[in-house]
Amino acid sequence: MEKVAIDHPGVKFLSNTGELQGEPVQQSFRRIKDMAGVFVSEEARDKMDPEQLVYEVQLYFPVQDGTNGGLFFGNTTIYPGRVGQEYFMTKGHFHAIRDRAEYYWCMEGEGVLILMDENRNTRGEKMTPGSLHYIPGKIAHRVANTGSNRLRFGACWPSDAGHDYESIAREGFGARLMVVNEVPTLVKS
Amino acid sequence: MEKVAIDHPGVKFLSNTGELQGEPVQQSFRRIKDMAGVFVSEEARDKMDPEQLVYEVQLYFPVQDGTNGGLFFGNTTIYPGRVGQEYFMTKGHFHAIRDRAEYYWCMEGEGVLILMDENRNTRGEKMTPGSLHYIPGKIAHRVANTGSNRLRFGACWPSDAGHDYESIAREGFGARLMVVNEVPTLVKS
Repeated sequence: MEKVAIDHPGVKFLSNTGELQGEPVQQSFRRIKDMAGVFVSEEARDKMDPEQLVYEVQLYFPVQDGTNGGLFFGNTTIYPGRVGQEYFMTKGHFHAIRDRAEYYWCMEGEGVLILMDENRNTRGEKMTPGSLHYIPGKIAHRVANTGSNRLRFGACWPSDAGHDYESIAREGFGARLMVVNEVPTLVKS
Repeated sequence: MEKVAIDHPGVKFLSNTGELQGEPVQQSFRRIKDMAGVFVSEEARDKMDPEQLVYEVQLYFPVQDGTNGGLFFGNTTIYPGRVGQEYFMTKGHFHAIRDRAEYYWCMEGEGVLILMDENRNTRGEKMTPGSLHYIPGKIAHRVANTGSNRLRFGACWPSDAGHDYESIAREGFGARLMVVNEVPTLVKS
């Protein structure tokens, strides 16, 4: 009888916290100083602590960026807060290869997934713990935290998808998540 | 000020149980009677209740099977048990489009992910709650439950991957998960 070794994989994705752990996991941070031009009020952003964390990302890239047929895995944590009347949010992007889809699933907190097609038609999906969101190809996506605690969601997407932040940086989304009469409201730009 | 509606997505993926909920979620079941030729001992299988559940799958297919760039999402629950000396397990498959990858992440229970390349080189990765497994392209994959409770894991894979169960049904994997001296052991076939 010949035995085959059973390895322990090097990466953990903890169900209770949504945290990724392990040597291959990369982490990146977006602070107020990194978010020029993202929020509608640059004046409000200028008054804030430039070091204040807006969101952070954990990434597991088991294959090279651009690998056809491969997949990446990650999570995003958006901290609670606002820039003026606008909720803390991610920069948002299309995928460089436009037809590539993505899943987001909310593990903690509450927010709104903002989705925009190539004609700038924009809509929102409520994120609450347990909500699973399919982001089809050709749809730009961004998440805003509308709660008073951190928002955390998981993500899985094709490793050849790439990111196109450019067109969003230039033109933004068709709507913004603002507080209006103390209610989170998706307002057409 | 023009408001944009915020929808509630129709599908839930519950972090605490790993359950998928919602209208679009499909469910399928594999019972002892569905597993002809999968385990090494057909004699042992013949003596079992043909209705006994071996595993079940919940699937969320937001786009049509075969869609390029899209993704599918699911979970699998393998019940504890053995057929003779061999642990309950999934049938296992290559993807029809060979280079398509997949993620499995264990949410409950313990088991082994059995991975085999196209040259029949086979290895195992231990599954425990929180373990995240990247299954690269061109690698057949199957999971065995080695514990005394149910094993549940999540999965995400490309919607054009397809399944090739045929070559596994014909030739099996290069190793089997057997109980040897009361220890789960991956034994070369």
